[in-house]
Amino acid sequence: MQLGMIGLGRMGANIVRRLMRDGHDCVVYDVSADSIAALEGEGATGTPTLEEFVAKLEKPRVAWVMIPAGITGATVEKLSALLDEGDIIIDGGNSNYRDDVRRAAKLREKGIHYVDIGTSGGVFGLERGYCLMVGGDDSAIATIEPILKTIAPGAGEIERTPGRTGELAPEEQGYLHCGPSGAGHFVKMVHNGIEYGIMAAFAEGLNILDNADAGIRSAEHSAEVAPLEEPEYYQFNVDTPKVAELWRRGSVVSSWLLDLTAAALQANPTLDGLAGRVSDSGEGRWTVKAAIDIGVPVPVLAASLFERFASRGEDHFANQVLSAMRQQFGGHNELPAGDSLEAGSAKSDQVQAKKG
Amino acid sequence: MQLGMIGLGRMGANIVRRLMRDGHDCVVYDVSADSIAALEGEGATGTPTLEEFVAKLEKPRVAWVMIPAGITGATVEKLSALLDEGDIIIDGGNSNYRDDVRRAAKLREKGIHYVDIGTSGGVFGLERGYCLMVGGDDSAIATIEPILKTIAPGAGEIERTPGRTGELAPEEQGYLHCGPSGAGHFVKMVHNGIEYGIMAAFAEGLNILDNADAGIRSAEHSAEVAPLEEPEYYQFNVDTPKVAELWRRGSVVSSWLLDLTAAALQANPTLDGLAGRVSDSGEGRWTVKAAIDIGVPVPVLAASLFERFASRGEDHFANQVLSAMRQQFGGHNELPAGDSLEAGSAKSDQVQAKKG
Amino acid sequence: MQLGMIGLGRMGANIVRRLMRDGHDCVVYDVSADSIAALEGEGATGTPTLEEFVAKLEKPRVAWVMIPAGITGATVEKLSALLDEGDIIIDGGNSNYRDDVRRAAKLREKGIHYVDIGTSGGVFGLERGYCLMVGGDDSAIATIEPILKTIAPGAGEIERTPGRTGELAPEEQGYLHCGPSGAGHFVKMVHNGIEYGIMAAFAEGLNILDNADAGIRSAEHSAEVAPLEEPEYYQFNVDTPKVAELWRRGSVVSSWLLDLTAAALQANPTLDGLAGRVSDSGEGRWTVKAAIDIGVPVPVLAASLFERFASRGEDHFANQVLSAMRQQFGGHNELPAGDSLEAGSAKSDQVQAKKG
Amino acid sequence: MQLGMIGLGRMGANIVRRLMRDGHDCVVYDVSADSIAALEGEGATGTPTLEEFVAKLEKPRVAWVMIPAGITGATVEKLSALLDEGDIIIDGGNSNYRDDVRRAAKLREKGIHYVDIGTSGGVFGLERGYCLMVGGDDSAIATIEPILKTIAPGAGEIERTPGRTGELAPEEQGYLHCGPSGAGHFVKMVHNGIEYGIMAAFAEGLNILDNADAGIRSAEHSAEVAPLEEPEYYQFNVDTPKVAELWRRGSVVSSWLLDLTAAALQANPTLDGLAGRVSDSGEGRWTVKAAIDIGVPVPVLAASLFERFASRGEDHFANQVLSAMRQQFGGHNELPAGDSLEAGSAKSDQVQAKKG
Repeated sequence: MQLGMIGLGRMGANIVRRLMRDGHDCVVYDVSADSIAALEGEGATGTPTLEEFVAKLEKPRVAWVMIPAGITGATVEKLSALLDEGDIIIDGGNSNYRDDVRRAAKLREKGIHYVDIGTSGGVFGLERGYCLMVGGDDSAIATIEPILKTIAPGAGEIERTPGRTGELAPEEQGYLHCGPSGAGHFVKMVHNGIEYGIMAAFAEGLNILDNADAGIRSAEHSAEVAPLEEPEYYQFNVDTPKVAELWRRGSVVSSWLLDLTAAALQANPTLDGLAGRVSDSGEGRWTVKAAIDIGVPVPVLAASLFERFASRGEDHFANQVLSAMRQQFGGHNELPAGDSLEAGSAKSDQVQAKKG
Repeated sequence: MQLGMIGLGRMGANIVRRLMRDGHDCVVYDVSADSIAALEGEGATGTPTLEEFVAKLEKPRVAWVMIPAGITGATVEKLSALLDEGDIIIDGGNSNYRDDVRRAAKLREKGIHYVDIGTSGGVFGLERGYCLMVGGDDSAIATIEPILKTIAPGAGEIERTPGRTGELAPEEQGYLHCGPSGAGHFVKMVHNGIEYGIMAAFAEGLNILDNADAGIRSAEHSAEVAPLEEPEYYQFNVDTPKVAELWRRGSVVSSWLLDLTAAALQANPTLDGLAGRVSDSGEGRWTVKAAIDIGVPVPVLAASLFERFASRGEDHFANQVLSAMRQQFGGHNELPAGDSLEAGSAKSDQVQAKKG
Repeated sequence: MQLGMIGLGRMGANIVRRLMRDGHDCVVYDVSADSIAALEGEGATGTPTLEEFVAKLEKPRVAWVMIPAGITGATVEKLSALLDEGDIIIDGGNSNYRDDVRRAAKLREKGIHYVDIGTSGGVFGLERGYCLMVGGDDSAIATIEPILKTIAPGAGEIERTPGRTGELAPEEQGYLHCGPSGAGHFVKMVHNGIEYGIMAAFAEGLNILDNADAGIRSAEHSAEVAPLEEPEYYQFNVDTPKVAELWRRGSVVSSWLLDLTAAALQANPTLDGLAGRVSDSGEGRWTVKAAIDIGVPVPVLAASLFERFASRGEDHFANQVLSAMRQQFGGHNELPAGDSLEAGSAKSDQVQAKKG
Repeated sequence: MQLGMIGLGRMGANIVRRLMRDGHDCVVYDVSADSIAALEGEGATGTPTLEEFVAKLEKPRVAWVMIPAGITGATVEKLSALLDEGDIIIDGGNSNYRDDVRRAAKLREKGIHYVDIGTSGGVFGLERGYCLMVGGDDSAIATIEPILKTIAPGAGEIERTPGRTGELAPEEQGYLHCGPSGAGHFVKMVHNGIEYGIMAAFAEGLNILDNADAGIRSAEHSAEVAPLEEPEYYQFNVDTPKVAELWRRGSVVSSWLLDLTAAALQANPTLDGLAGRVSDSGEGRWTVKAAIDIGVPVPVLAASLFERFASRGEDHFANQVLSAMRQQFGGHNELPAGDSLEAGSAKSDQVQAKKG
C-alpha cells in the first residue's frame, strides 16, 4: 500500500527503506532537501512541500509523522489542515501519550483518524524490524495493518511461547493494537521505563564487578573515606567484557541489552572517553509520574531515573547541604576535592594494565 | 572424562544427564537411594556411601558437590577427609563466595584443589546448557575443562559480538574462568543481583500497565485514598499478556526473563492463585552487602531486594509507625483495613471480565 | 484586623480561635450550621450564606478559604464573583501550587489578589501556632501581615540561629513570603515531601530495632525464607518506646516527629490495632513529580512515597509477576500464604511478652 | 566517682570536662602529651603510660576508651591485660556492635566487664550533654550510672511525653541500658542510619527549592538534556536559607538537623566552597547490612547511603556503562562533558545574584 512519511531522520528514513523493500509505495517529505533526494534515489516519491506531499497521497491518505516530539504538535496541526475526513495521521515519534489523547479528540471532530505508534528498535530496526505499540480506533488500524506487518520484525526465529497455537497473533509478529488513542505511546512509555531499570541493573552490577579488586587497591589509598573492612574478600580482577559475553549464553540475564553491553565492552573494555553523563529522553520521567498518579510503587524505575539525573550533577546542591550539615554537627571537613580524581586515575591505570 | 556428582536434585541430576549424553562417565551419590537408582537406570555408576563414591573415582578425582548451601560446608569437609593431594572438589551450588575463599585456603594446605562454579540456567539447563562462572586455580580448571565445555550451552545460534574473531573463546561457549577461588560465585552472586533488578523492572512496569485503567475504576471507588487527579489519562484496558508477547520481538527489553514472563502470563493471564509473597535466596542480599563494603552505589539492586522483603510483610512495623505518626500530628485515622481488599477484589473481577 | 474564614473544620476553626484570642475580628462561614454556631459562641460573627459572609466583610475584604483541596476551586470561583477589586482571597488549604498559579492569573484580571498559604502544624497548631509559607503579591501580603503574625508561632523559646542579629525577621516568627502566587504551596509541598522522608527514616530504623531479636526467633521458625546467617548478632530485645524517648535528648535525630513517635509508642508500645495501611495526601506525590520535571534526583523522597503505596497493597500485581517468573525459571513455588501471618503473630506474642 | 579516660580527642576531652564540672575525678591518658597536659590544667590527673593510667585507678577500675574504631580493638586488648577481675572497660567510640559481642565474650572469661556506649551529640555535647545508648551487664551499668547521669543531657526543658508520670526514667534523662553487650552500639548504629535518612530528606527537598527557578533558567540553556515541559510552573526564586529558618517554628519537620541546616545556610547561603563529596563513617553501612541480614526493607536508609557513595563519584563506571548502552542501541552520543559545568556556574552566578 501507499504511505506518506514526514521526517527522514534515521528512524523515518529506515522505516521508508524497510517498507519499499517489501513493495510498498512511499511519498516522503522533510525540511532537508538532501534527505528527500537520498530517498528518491532509493525509489521514494519526494515532495518539496507539505502541500505537494498531501497532493501526492491517495485517499484515504496515510501520513506518518516521524519527527522530534517538540515539533510534532505544530506539524500535526499544519498537516491536518490539509487533510480530509477519513484520512489517517500516524505519530510514530516519542510523544507523550497525553498529547495523543488531546490531539486525537481534536482531530476526531474533523473526521481525521489519529494513530499513535510507539516504535522500539533503534539503529538496528532496519534489519531487525521495529516493535510497534499502536493506539487508535479499529478502522484506522485495520487500514494500516499491511504496513505495520512490514515494519514489524515478524515472528522470526524466536521460540513460540508455550500454550500459543494456531495462526500467529499480531503480537507474535511484533505489532499490537494496545487500545484507543494514546495507548500505543503509553505502552511504549512503560517499555522505556522498564528499559531504564534493566539498564541500571546491568550498570550497577558491572560496577560491582569493576570494583571487586577494592581489596587490592585499598592498600594503596590509605586515606580512603571508610576503610575497607575485609579486604581479603575483594581481591578479584574481574574481566567485565568477558563476563558480559559469558552471560549471553544460558544465563537468566541474557537479553538484547546484554548483547549490546558485551559489544560496547568488546569495543572499548574500559569505556575510556565516556564521561558518564547519562541523558534521559522523557519516557522514563513520564513513566514514574504516571505511576505516581495511579499510586503504583516503582522504586526500581524511579531509582534508575534518579541515577541519570545524578550522573549529570543534578544532585550537587543536595550533596553540599549534606556536607554542610556534617560540618555543623560533627565538625567534619570534606576531603579535598581532588582526592577521588587521583584515586580514579590510579584505578583507571590499573584497569588499563590488567585489561590491556 | 569421569566426574563424580554428590547431590542428585534437579540441578545435579540434569548436569549428570547432560554429561552422559556427551559421553562422560558419571559416578553419583545422594542421601536418597531412589535418586541414585534413577540415574543408575540412565547409565550412571551409583554409590551408596561417600566412601564408595570416592573409591570409584580415578585419580586425580573430580567430585562435584551440588547440594543446598547450608550443608555444603559439612559435606566438603567429610569429602576432603577421604581425598588425596591433587584431587579436585567442585562446589557448583549457591554458596557465598566468602565460604569459597575460606574453604579453598584450608584445602590448599592439604593439596586439594577447590573450584567454585556459579551455575545459571534453572530448569531449562538440561536442554539449553548451563552458564558457568568458575573460580579456582589454573591447573584444576584446565583438568576439568572438558566437562565445563559439555555442561555449558556452547556457542549456539547466538550472533557473534562484533569485533570478536578467530576461535571461540570459552566465554563465547558459556563458561569462564573468572579468577581465583571465590571468583566464580562472586560473579554468579552479582549475576543474581542483576537478575533481581531486571525482574523488578518488568514487574513494576507491568504493574503500571495493569493499573492503566485506574481512571475507569476510580469512579466506582469514591472513597479512595487520594483521588485520581486526571482520570481521563488512565482509561486503558491494557492486555498485559499480549504486551509481554509483543516486546519479545524487536524491542529493547527483549530478554529471556521476558520470554518467561510472557509464558507465565499466557498460562495464567491474571496470575490468579499467586499470593505475591516473593522469596529471595541469598545472592541478592550478598550482592548489596558486597556493594556496600566496597562503596559502590546500587540503588536499583537494593530496591529490588527490599521489594521482596516488603512483599512478605516485613515492612509491617515500619508502616504501623507511619500510621501512628500520622495519627499524632494530624489526627488522621487509618482507612479501615478491609478497604483495599474490596477494592482489590473489585478490580480482580474487572480484570477477569476484561481478560476472560 | 478583620478576617473572614470559609471552612470551619479542625484547621479553620482553630485558626479563627487563635486569631480571636489575639483580638482580631472573625467572620465565619461553613456548610455546617453547627460549626458556625460553635464559633459564634466563642465570639465570631457567623454568616449563613456566602453572600452574607461577603456582606459582613469590610473592604478591602480578606477571605481565607480553608476547605478540602478538591472543592477549593469551585468555592474560590463562587467567592470571587461576589468580591470587588482590591479584595484578597487566601487559600490556606492543601492545594496544588499549580492551581494557585492558574487561579491567581485569572483573579488578577479582575483585580482580586490571591494569596496561597501552606500551613503546617496539625492538631497542635492552636497552641503552638502554625508555620506559614506564603505566596502572592507584596501589597496583599503587607495587608494581611497582622494576621500572619498572630497565626504563626512567633519566636518562642527556640534558640536564635548564630549570625542572625537585630530585629526578628518574619521567618524567625514563623511566617515567610516565599514568592509570587504558588510559592507558598510550593514550599509547603516540598516541606511535606521532606516530612515523608523523615517519617520513613524513623519508621525503617525502628523496624530494624523491632527485629533485632531475629536471632532468637529464627530458631523457632526453621522454614523461614532465607535462614538468618549469623543469629548470634541478632539477640537484642530492644525496647523501642524507650529508645524513641531516649533519642529526644541530645541526639542528632531529635525532632518534633520523634517527640510524636515517642508519644505514640508510649501510648501503644506494640502499635496494636494499626493495620499499617499508610495514606498519602497529595503533596508527597506532587513533590516527586516536580523534582522529576526539573531533573532533581530525589531517591529518598520517592522511596518514602512508594513505601506508602506498597503498604496499601498497590505492589500486589508486581509481586505476583515476580513469583510467576521464579516459578518459570526455577520451578520455585511460593511459600504458603499463611506462613508469615503465623510468624507475625508468633512475633507479636513475643513482643507483647517482652514489653508487657 | 572516678573515671579513667583513654583518648583525649574532641569527644573524649569534652566528656572529661563535663564530668569534672559535675565533681567527678578523671584520670586521663592519650598518645599526645599535649592533650594530657591540657586536661591536667583543667583538673584531671594525667598519666604518661597505660600502666600508670591503670595504677592510678581505684578498684573496681572504670576505663573509658574513646579512640578511632580502627585502633579500639588493640587498645582494649592491651588495657585488659593490665586490669583485674571486676574492672570495667567502656568503649564509647564508634565501634561495630559485632566487635562488642566478640570482645565482651572474651573479656567475660577474665571476669572483666565490657560496656559499649553509643554516644551522640557531636561538638555540641559539652554544653548540651551526650545521648547515651548503653550495652552490657546489669551490675557494670549500675556501677557507672553516676557518670552516665552526668554525661547525659538530663531532662532539660523538653516537654514530657504524655502518659509518662512519676520519677524520671533514665531514658528521659538521656541514657538507656539497651541490652547486653553490643546493644548500645547497635542502637547507635540504627540511630545513625536514621540520621542519614533525615539528612537526605532535607538535602533532596532543599535541592528542589534551589531549582524551583528552572523555568527561568531553562530559556537560557536551550540545549538542555530534556527540555522543561511546563516552565511556567518553575518560576520561583526561593530563598532557601530563609525557608530553613522558617521551618524551625511550628512545622512538622522542625528538628535539630534543621536547626543546623539553617545555621549552615545562614553562614554560607550558597554553600560556596563545598564540593559536595559526602563522607560516610561506617554506621550507615552497618545499618543497611544489618537490615538485609534480618530481612527488613530499608529503601530510604539505603538510598541515603548510596547518594553519599555517588556524591564521591563511585557511580562512575555504572554511568559509563549506561552511556555505552545508549550509544549502542540508539546511536546517542553523550553531551559534551563541559556542558553541565557551564550550566552549573551560570546557575551559581544567578544564585549569587539573587541571594547577594
